[in-house]
Amino acid sequence: MPTTEIALPAEVEHTPANCRAREMLVRVADKWSMYVIHVLAEAGPLRFNELRRRVDGVSQRMLTVTLRGLERDGLVSRAMYPEMPPRVEYALTPLGATLRELVRGLIEWSGAHLAEVDAARARYDAEPRQWALAEDPN
Amino acid sequence: MPTTEIALPAEVEHTPANCRAREMLVRVADKWSMYVIHVLAEAGPLRFNELRRRVDGVSQRMLTVTLRGLERDGLVSRAMYPEMPPRVEYALTPLGATLRELVRGLIEWSGAHLAEVDAARARYDAEPRQWALAEDPN
Repeated sequence: MPTTEIALPAEVEHTPANCRAREMLVRVADKWSMYVIHVLAEAGPLRFNELRRRVDGVSQRMLTVTLRGLERDGLVSRAMYPEMPPRVEYALTPLGATLRELVRGLIEWSGAHLAEVDAARARYDAEPRQWALAEDPN
Repeated sequence: MPTTEIALPAEVEHTPANCRAREMLVRVADKWSMYVIHVLAEAGPLRFNELRRRVDGVSQRMLTVTLRGLERDGLVSRAMYPEMPPRVEYALTPLGATLRELVRGLIEWSGAHLAEVDAARARYDAEPRQWALAEDPN
């Protein structure tokens, strides 16, 4: 986990560097990217089909798009071995590995707070939504 | 940040609890949810339009959908004050506040590694993609 402390108080929300950070977050804050990073962090280098088996519910197309984005961002490497048929393996780069603990933290958070979220959902679904939602276009 | 250590080795990838954790990650691993959590963590309770101004690029519809999901999951509270016009404020719940450091960590990571990602993108875009992508449906 990065130890650099970058303060982002509300009044600097719109600095260019912060806007770039938001753009980057788009890649990282994506469930398939996180799953892929997590699976490669836990299992080591994997071929496409092994990866697809471990990332529940991902389509071939979505996994291809996700891997291409992660490779372009330097988070995942793609190594092709000249065999027949060619073997291609995906692995975390050192840069991608720096996300390992953050992604693990989010997955651990999800596991630790499942019951609270379930209880909140049950309460929300049981409650009548009678008030006008001024900001709600529906 | 949760201190609970939940090991998720590759061989237990498909346990039901882990599948539920993946389902939860869907909510958390969403850029708009993260932005909203981050902004509410930094700025405190906000009205819809204040929130929208601080979450660059979010549409009214997407912010409404995001807030409804976060409220249903118990991460954000919605308080209505009976004024004319009614004042509605959104705030992190105690549960939502437990995500604060994880979300901040991801945003800090993005800020700290911008230059590395930019360099990786430049390398990727300069490199000819000549190899056949066996797994690529395109």
